[in-house]
Amino acid sequence: MAKELTSRSENYSQWYQDLVIKADLAENSAVRGCMVIKPYGYAIWEKMQAELDRMFKETGHVNAYFPLFIPKSFFSREADHVEGFAKECAVVTHYRLKNDEENGGIVVDSDAKLEEELIVRPTSETIIWNTYRNWIQSHRDLPLLINQWANVVRWEMRTRLFLRTTEFLWQEGHTAHATEEEAIEETQKMIQVYANFVENFMALPVIQGVKTENERFAGAIDTYTIEALMQDGKALQSGTSHFLGQNFAKAFDVKFTNKEGREEFVWATSWGVSTRLMGALVMAHSDDNGLVLPPRLAPVQVVIVPIYKKSEQLELIAKQVDAIVAELKGLGISVKFDDSDNKKPGWKFAEYELKGVPVRLAMGPRDLENGTVEVARRDTMEKKVVPIEGVAGYIQTLLEEIQLSIYNKALGFRNQNTFRADSWEEFNDILKNKGGFISAHWDGTTETEEKIKTETKATIRCIPLNNEPEEGTCIYSGKPSKQRVLFALSY
Amino acid sequence: MAKELTSRSENYSQWYQDLVIKADLAENSAVRGCMVIKPYGYAIWEKMQAELDRMFKETGHVNAYFPLFIPKSFFSREADHVEGFAKECAVVTHYRLKNDEENGGIVVDSDAKLEEELIVRPTSETIIWNTYRNWIQSHRDLPLLINQWANVVRWEMRTRLFLRTTEFLWQEGHTAHATEEEAIEETQKMIQVYANFVENFMALPVIQGVKTENERFAGAIDTYTIEALMQDGKALQSGTSHFLGQNFAKAFDVKFTNKEGREEFVWATSWGVSTRLMGALVMAHSDDNGLVLPPRLAPVQVVIVPIYKKSEQLELIAKQVDAIVAELKGLGISVKFDDSDNKKPGWKFAEYELKGVPVRLAMGPRDLENGTVEVARRDTMEKKVVPIEGVAGYIQTLLEEIQLSIYNKALGFRNQNTFRADSWEEFNDILKNKGGFISAHWDGTTETEEKIKTETKATIRCIPLNNEPEEGTCIYSGKPSKQRVLFALSY
Repeated sequence: MAKELTSRSENYSQWYQDLVIKADLAENSAVRGCMVIKPYGYAIWEKMQAELDRMFKETGHVNAYFPLFIPKSFFSREADHVEGFAKECAVVTHYRLKNDEENGGIVVDSDAKLEEELIVRPTSETIIWNTYRNWIQSHRDLPLLINQWANVVRWEMRTRLFLRTTEFLWQEGHTAHATEEEAIEETQKMIQVYANFVENFMALPVIQGVKTENERFAGAIDTYTIEALMQDGKALQSGTSHFLGQNFAKAFDVKFTNKEGREEFVWATSWGVSTRLMGALVMAHSDDNGLVLPPRLAPVQVVIVPIYKKSEQLELIAKQVDAIVAELKGLGISVKFDDSDNKKPGWKFAEYELKGVPVRLAMGPRDLENGTVEVARRDTMEKKVVPIEGVAGYIQTLLEEIQLSIYNKALGFRNQNTFRADSWEEFNDILKNKGGFISAHWDGTTETEEKIKTETKATIRCIPLNNEPEEGTCIYSGKPSKQRVLFALSY
Repeated sequence: MAKELTSRSENYSQWYQDLVIKADLAENSAVRGCMVIKPYGYAIWEKMQAELDRMFKETGHVNAYFPLFIPKSFFSREADHVEGFAKECAVVTHYRLKNDEENGGIVVDSDAKLEEELIVRPTSETIIWNTYRNWIQSHRDLPLLINQWANVVRWEMRTRLFLRTTEFLWQEGHTAHATEEEAIEETQKMIQVYANFVENFMALPVIQGVKTENERFAGAIDTYTIEALMQDGKALQSGTSHFLGQNFAKAFDVKFTNKEGREEFVWATSWGVSTRLMGALVMAHSDDNGLVLPPRLAPVQVVIVPIYKKSEQLELIAKQVDAIVAELKGLGISVKFDDSDNKKPGWKFAEYELKGVPVRLAMGPRDLENGTVEVARRDTMEKKVVPIEGVAGYIQTLLEEIQLSIYNKALGFRNQNTFRADSWEEFNDILKNKGGFISAHWDGTTETEEKIKTETKATIRCIPLNNEPEEGTCIYSGKPSKQRVLFALSY
């Protein structure tokens, strides 16, 4: 029941953990750091996937599938890449088990040792660029615009459901281009696609920007990011798009003959979002009663609860409800009529609040007399009695209103929690007492960035796109700075 | 180009391999036994997934996701299960790489050895039933009707694209029930869903039946199967549905309180189809010119090729084509207008034949004069000139006709290649000279089954459902038999 949730003010982190589990989104599995995504959570992920997949296809991309395993030697080819991922790799060393003749049970068969170890993919640049070498000869083979939906594994020491798990689900785009310009354009296009998705479907405003050198993807020339603010004032990196230059083409010897007949290395991008978005969705909008889901991603958009004492009443209510259900379905709205008889209406109300169903209808004997129905919206918890006549159209409009309203609430929160700091004291004061995004001058060096991180745990989330140039002095070093960057504590 | 395909009569196996690669469906990767599914192949798989997923949901199932890794100890819990899978498991033993200080490069970090090895899932019964223990308490929690779309790994020694690969994509349903009867009903329902899918979408007739004890899934009480006949007279197991009894519930201690308040073990089923279906699709219908795709699974259902010399002609053709394209799209038909200027029409014709596009339209200057267009169907290679007026409706009907015609051709082939054998000589003669399905009496013992397999390589594909009881004598042992079973050589 919803009341068992820890409140956000009491312990935000525990509230999140409680909510993910009690709303049946996911749970920890028997395998360290790996989660089970439960049907209700997976239904939301499926909705995200469907929209993203549509957006990728509309921008000219196609899907393909590459191996789960990456030969260890591929990893060493791109120096920064291996540096970034080597410490968190699951390694397959054997391919057979056998009976333990002495002690019973089963053991790894030492005779079945692989000549070269295989890495369970933490990301697929290496195996994909090794494949692209055979696919690309001429400029006519370019661009190659490919996406993959897959599972990946990064051996994280501290895990949290959805936000950081050993195995997670994601998509990874890997594109190949004839020119640097075109690859950069693709990198930017895809971060924009992500921003559109997160803002329009997840109802969550994001800041688009580029990462500092220190925070870049291992092997990238430039990493674009979208950063969203959670209710506890921490930032969450929600998607990244990397301009990889010719790094992977050089590492895997991928060349093409250009229009002038000369051989050149191919230009690359990669971009991804993951089940981490589920964490962002939960943390951004939900409250102490449970999930608040934006209607566009809610598996059930409308739930209808009958209130009755006698079965004849239920029959009469069901008759009215059936007509409403049919109308809603006709409008493409997903609706559930919960006429189960083993739970009381109050229990159901709490349950669907916990599950974040955007709109709840309740109908009782008095409604039958008056030709009305009670409509409750999850985001504001407001209730209103409206005529049954025309209720489907009313709900359709209401769902759009809720979608917008959730977005605006998150935007208002972010605006209230974005600060400018012009001194080190101010910076620390905001971090300590307010949290949120802090726009501040930075001298542009990794050294300063690292020191700020060590002293405060705050990192540079991004250098926002279209940042206004502004002369100033670094809050930490006092050295000259040409622009503000965005700091925050983060997930 | 299509003409480079090995012909089926020359070398069926090579023809298949050539076709999968040249039609851009898949290729072997740098990782032994793992394939890359290329965009065209993946687009067909996506269509299969979409239809299957819809069918699963229509029958009350929901999707979820369970971990890629399975602790080794889980494997030993169900004796038959571990026996069946232990010899083909990829085993993760370490979770970190490090720089090799002495020789350069990277090596596995021996300090990062797992306490318990993890198996990359070959199938998920064990991890899922370990999870279900916490999800199921009462009869009210049942049935649990869950499906998972996932990758799995089985360390196969001999691999063939799609048919048998180390990693493959599949779906695995895992359901939990309160009664034996209900679980058996579910097992049968899902094999029927598979049969409907393969027959109606893949245009491939199947025989439904149950496996003999010897051919059952490791851990199952009963395995239902659908078996299809390929053009070389070999059978291909295309989907299986298992009644698991209480085996996994007992192994993982999954009990529920029934309506009478007594504790009982839960009843289980599991069922799956995989990217192997892609192999069946290719082998069942294609010819020496390339793929023949059933319209319902073709990523491009109609291709339009302009035939012209001057660019003014192309412009006039394009104007007509645009209208046809709009009409076809309006009917939900996927269409591609290939006006690329770097390939000749003849090359394009061969290319789309290779790719199995069901309908090709060609339009040239004479068609413009006459208000006609040439329509070629891929399955029969027939061409016909029809008026542009009404061509979209004509194509819509034609696509349905092709779908049916491909099915009927495969059904005719299977009928012609299903034989009855009443003696050991007859059985061997058919196997040697004809191939196909052989309906014959068998004494019901594993011993005889194994001997037949050793001597002829033929296996019992299934005991067909609704088999007519028939008294007879086993073709091998001469012992009494109560029914015929279906033998074949198989993939």
